[in-house]
Amino acid sequence: MRYFLHLAYNGTPFHGWQIQPHDVSVQSTIEDALRRLTGTYIPVTGAGRTDAGVNARHMVAHLDLPDSVTPDERWMRSLGAMVGRNIALKGIEPVAPDAHARFDATSRTYRYFVHTSPDPFTGGFSWQAPPKFDFDAMNHAASLILGTRDFTSFSKLHTDVKTNICTVTAAGWHLNDAPLAPVDGSSRYFEITADRFLRNMVRAIVGTLADIGRGKMAPESILAILEAKDRCAAGTSMPASPLFLWDVTYGG
Amino acid sequence: MRYFLHLAYNGTPFHGWQIQPHDVSVQSTIEDALRRLTGTYIPVTGAGRTDAGVNARHMVAHLDLPDSVTPDERWMRSLGAMVGRNIALKGIEPVAPDAHARFDATSRTYRYFVHTSPDPFTGGFSWQAPPKFDFDAMNHAASLILGTRDFTSFSKLHTDVKTNICTVTAAGWHLNDAPLAPVDGSSRYFEITADRFLRNMVRAIVGTLADIGRGKMAPESILAILEAKDRCAAGTSMPASPLFLWDVTYGG
Repeated sequence: MRYFLHLAYNGTPFHGWQIQPHDVSVQSTIEDALRRLTGTYIPVTGAGRTDAGVNARHMVAHLDLPDSVTPDERWMRSLGAMVGRNIALKGIEPVAPDAHARFDATSRTYRYFVHTSPDPFTGGFSWQAPPKFDFDAMNHAASLILGTRDFTSFSKLHTDVKTNICTVTAAGWHLNDAPLAPVDGSSRYFEITADRFLRNMVRAIVGTLADIGRGKMAPESILAILEAKDRCAAGTSMPASPLFLWDVTYGG
Repeated sequence: MRYFLHLAYNGTPFHGWQIQPHDVSVQSTIEDALRRLTGTYIPVTGAGRTDAGVNARHMVAHLDLPDSVTPDERWMRSLGAMVGRNIALKGIEPVAPDAHARFDATSRTYRYFVHTSPDPFTGGFSWQAPPKFDFDAMNHAASLILGTRDFTSFSKLHTDVKTNICTVTAAGWHLNDAPLAPVDGSSRYFEITADRFLRNMVRAIVGTLADIGRGKMAPESILAILEAKDRCAAGTSMPASPLFLWDVTYGG
């Protein structure tokens, strides 16, 4: 029987979602736990491959469990204990035998958290931005990347990707009104939704926006960067720990 | 000229607000920074004394600056850099020469954060509660401590306090709807407001509520504990890092 597993993880201790030959990944941690719990190798396929150090508030993965396994509350607690405290299992649901966590996902949303005033409570999940950070200019630039475009300038070289075309349906900065966020509006996040993302894409976009927010470039220059189709044209990539895969949606 | 300084701090690296002979406190860190910046010893008086490891989202302190000092934005940035990244200065405002951060405060509010499902993003600022935690029973018990009462059972022995009478005006559990909190309602906080708090009082109250939430005691037993006026009657004290001095209010 095929299931969708819903989970969150703190990406700091992991070398990304995807299994790596010599490093600990989220995928390998879950597959190891499943092997210990069921005695079988059960592959797990995620909705996307978050990069090393990137977090997920809501990741979806599919897996096939043998009929002998009923993933009830108790079973989920056992699996949850085995994956360790940096991965939180949120739920599991039976799906159609051909349902696919990656191919069936219609959009992904990421959030990148920043704070412009000192904030002692971010736990590393937010980037300390300059005190004068021009959110209006960055929002203007963000509006220019909406639509279906070639994002080669905002990706790492990636051998197994056939196209760098992505459709961005939302991109902009928002106030963070979390209880622990400062009351002065200095805590914000960049939210971006697209049908797909290339490797390193969100952090390269935020890095370019940060150059615009600092006044180093005009908002419109983001269009020339897209046109260049050259990674060197864009700003430097941002640190991973303030980035969250926020949500994955499925059509229908 | 007298000023009220507004600040937040991550309590983890500090031995509380109050200056200690051999330990680093928030107060001593600020006074050291003021000495380096002004060349003068300038005492700082806080609205309350948070215990070792307890955080403050909004602490207020008063201090007298020599007339030669104008605490403008640039001066505050210098002071902010000197107090380090675990203290965030939020603002400074001139007040009447006899204004007193502690005696003029009319109420204090604390929040204690918990989560009942695994949450990899708390950064230590939340306590992992049992999966079955009876919030209704705890809210019933919390409602029984409202009003003006002797809180000796919920305090540490404290030589310089003349009375253990406190007036609690609000006490109860709330859903934590922070962006990083799980969407399943498993993240909550206990909020309590009173005119004053005794040493260790919030953590002793939450520890007693936790015994009620686990089903070890009936909600009504909190009244017998109050009656006993004996610290040994109450539950064990909770860890410090999920506790925040959330706000201080001044009348008029």
